[in-house]
Amino acid sequence: MTRVSYRPLLSTKVTLAHGSGGRETEDIVLNLIVNLVPESLRSVPGGVGLEALDDGAAIPVPGGYMVFTVDSYTVNPPFFPGGNIGSLAASGTINDLLMMGARPVAALDAIVVEEGFEVSKLREITESLIKTLAENNVALIGGDFKVLPKGQLDKIVVTVAGIGFAKKLILDSNIKPGDKIIVTGPIAEHGALILALQQNLEPKDLVSDAKPLTDLMLPLIEEYGDYIHAARDPTRGGLAMALNDWAEATGTVIVIDEEKIPIREPVRAYTEMLGVDPLTLASEGVALLAVDASKAEEVLQRIHELGYKEARIIGEVKKAERHKGIVLLKSVTGGVRILEPPSGEIVPRIC
Amino acid sequence: MTRVSYRPLLSTKVTLAHGSGGRETEDIVLNLIVNLVPESLRSVPGGVGLEALDDGAAIPVPGGYMVFTVDSYTVNPPFFPGGNIGSLAASGTINDLLMMGARPVAALDAIVVEEGFEVSKLREITESLIKTLAENNVALIGGDFKVLPKGQLDKIVVTVAGIGFAKKLILDSNIKPGDKIIVTGPIAEHGALILALQQNLEPKDLVSDAKPLTDLMLPLIEEYGDYIHAARDPTRGGLAMALNDWAEATGTVIVIDEEKIPIREPVRAYTEMLGVDPLTLASEGVALLAVDASKAEEVLQRIHELGYKEARIIGEVKKAERHKGIVLLKSVTGGVRILEPPSGEIVPRIC
Repeated sequence: MTRVSYRPLLSTKVTLAHGSGGRETEDIVLNLIVNLVPESLRSVPGGVGLEALDDGAAIPVPGGYMVFTVDSYTVNPPFFPGGNIGSLAASGTINDLLMMGARPVAALDAIVVEEGFEVSKLREITESLIKTLAENNVALIGGDFKVLPKGQLDKIVVTVAGIGFAKKLILDSNIKPGDKIIVTGPIAEHGALILALQQNLEPKDLVSDAKPLTDLMLPLIEEYGDYIHAARDPTRGGLAMALNDWAEATGTVIVIDEEKIPIREPVRAYTEMLGVDPLTLASEGVALLAVDASKAEEVLQRIHELGYKEARIIGEVKKAERHKGIVLLKSVTGGVRILEPPSGEIVPRIC
Repeated sequence: MTRVSYRPLLSTKVTLAHGSGGRETEDIVLNLIVNLVPESLRSVPGGVGLEALDDGAAIPVPGGYMVFTVDSYTVNPPFFPGGNIGSLAASGTINDLLMMGARPVAALDAIVVEEGFEVSKLREITESLIKTLAENNVALIGGDFKVLPKGQLDKIVVTVAGIGFAKKLILDSNIKPGDKIIVTGPIAEHGALILALQQNLEPKDLVSDAKPLTDLMLPLIEEYGDYIHAARDPTRGGLAMALNDWAEATGTVIVIDEEKIPIREPVRAYTEMLGVDPLTLASEGVALLAVDASKAEEVLQRIHELGYKEARIIGEVKKAERHKGIVLLKSVTGGVRILEPPSGEIVPRIC
C-alpha cells in the first residue's frame, strides 16, 4: 500500500487544517515525515510501517505480530460529558490496537501539563486513563511527565503508546471488491459534542461515545478474523476520511447508502446548525469494518448480539471501472455524489 | 525494586518543580500514576514495568525481551548549538533503550505543533529526527501529527516511543556493593547550554552533547553485558538524580570522588555564574554505568578505545551501614557530604 504520489506542501506555515486529520494532514505527514524516511527504514522486515498509514505498526515475532500505536491527545475541553482526555487517550489507544487485529497488552504514557493546572483535575485524568486501561486488562508499564511554564501550553497533552499482540493482522490493504461495509454504531457523537462545546453551546443531549471496543472486537477477531478484511475507528476526519483512505489505498470504489448511516437526531441537529458534515466528525467508540460478503450478515448479527444494536451494513466495496479510489454516496432520492476526503480546519483539538 | 513508600502530594497546583526530573517529579508520578495502577497491571508477567522507574519497560518474548520507552520532548529553544528537538528526541529514545541493554529497532513519533510554526523549521526538525534514527538503523514505523491553535502551545512538543530488543536486560536493580561507577564523558553539557540560552546569554563555548550512544553501548552490551550491572543516561535531574535513584532503589551507599567527575571548564563557569549545581543538569550523550569491580578497569579501557576518551571511574557502590540509599560526595579537601536528590525548578523545558 505504498503511496508514491503526494501533493507538494504549498503553505509556508503550519495551519490548523494540517492537524485536522483530513487531506492536509496527509499532505504534511507524507511530505515532512514518510517521504524523508529511507524506504528500507519505513518498516521492519516482515512488518507493517509508515507507508501503510494504518491505525498502527507491526513487528513480526514468533507466533504473530507485536502491534504498536502512538497518539498525542489534545482534546479541548479536556473534561466533557462522557469522559475526559485520560479516558479518551486510553480508549483511542486500545481501539487502534484492536483495529489492527491485536489484543491490547500494555501502554506507556507521556503527560505534558501547564504549570498551575489543578492537581485534583490531573488526578481525575490519570485515574480515568488508568481505570480505562485496567478495565480492559491493559498494563501501564512506563511513562514520562513534563510541565510547561504557565502560558506555554493551554492545559494538557496526553500521549499514549500502545502495545498489542496479533496472531494475524487486520490490514486496510486486504479490502476486496464485494466486501460489505459495516458501521458498529451511530457516528460523529464525540466530534459533534466537542464542536458544540468549543462554540460555547450547552449541548445537553450530546455525549462523547469515547470507549474501548474490546468487548466487541476481541470476539469478532477470534471468531471472524479471516472474514474481517479491514477495520478502522473513524476518529479525526470521520467516516469520510476513513472510507477515502480505504478506497485510495486499494484502488476500489466504495459505495455507501447515505440513509443507512446511523446518526442520532441531536447529532444531526447540531451539525446542521453548525454547518459541519457529520461524516467528517470523529467517533471515538465506533468501528468501521469491511467484511467478506459471504459472512457480512452473520457478522452483523454477532455484533448486535454483542450489544452494538445500532450496527448496520451501510455499503459495499466495488471494483473500480472508470474512476478508482473514490467513495460514492447514494442519497435517499437515488442521486449519487462523490464523498470527498475532508479538508480544512474541521474541529481543532477534537481528540 | 518496589517503591512502597512515597511522600504525599501537598501542592494543589502543578508546579515547574513537578516537571524538573527531581524529587517532586517522583512525588507526582508516584502519587498520580504508579500508585493508582493495580499492582498486577504495573508490568506484564516476567517483564519490567512502572515500579522499576527505570529508563524503559520490558516484555518477555522468545529469546529475550522487547524493550519500550516513551518521552515527550519539550526543549526550549527547540534549535540550539549541537542539535534541535528532533535530533534530541531521537537520541534520547535510542539512549533509553540502550541503557536497558537493548538494541534499538524501531520508533514511532507524535508531533504537536503550534499553528503558524514555520514549515521549513518543522522540516528541519523532522529531518533531524529521521536522520538520527536512520544513522542508528532505527526504523520509523508510525506516528501522529496534531496542531494546536496559535497561542495554545509555545512552539512544539515531540514525543517518541522507542522499541528495542534485548537478549538480557540491564536493570538498575542489579547494582551490587563493590561496583565501580563510570561516567563516559563530561557532564551537564546539554543542561548548561539550555539554561544559558533561556537566560538570553550567548554561550559561544557551550554546545549540547545530545547524541545516540549506539557506537558505545552496543559493543559494551555485547562484550561486557554480564558485568555492566546498571546503566543510565543522566538527563533531567542530572547525575545527582540518577545516583540517588540507584542508591535508593538498591539500599546501598554510593560514594563519588567529586574531583573525578569530568566537567568542562566553560560548563563549570556558566553554572557557577548562574548559581546551578552541574550535578543536577542534564547530559544527553553520556552514560552512567555501574560495573563489576573485577572488570571495571577493562571496561573503562574499552570505552576509551571506542572514542570516549574522557570516561572515568568516579566512585563506587558500598554496602550501607548506618544510612542506606544515600549518595556521598568526597571533596578534594577530604570532606564528605551527602549529595541530595535535586529538587525545585532546576531548568524548565530542558529536554
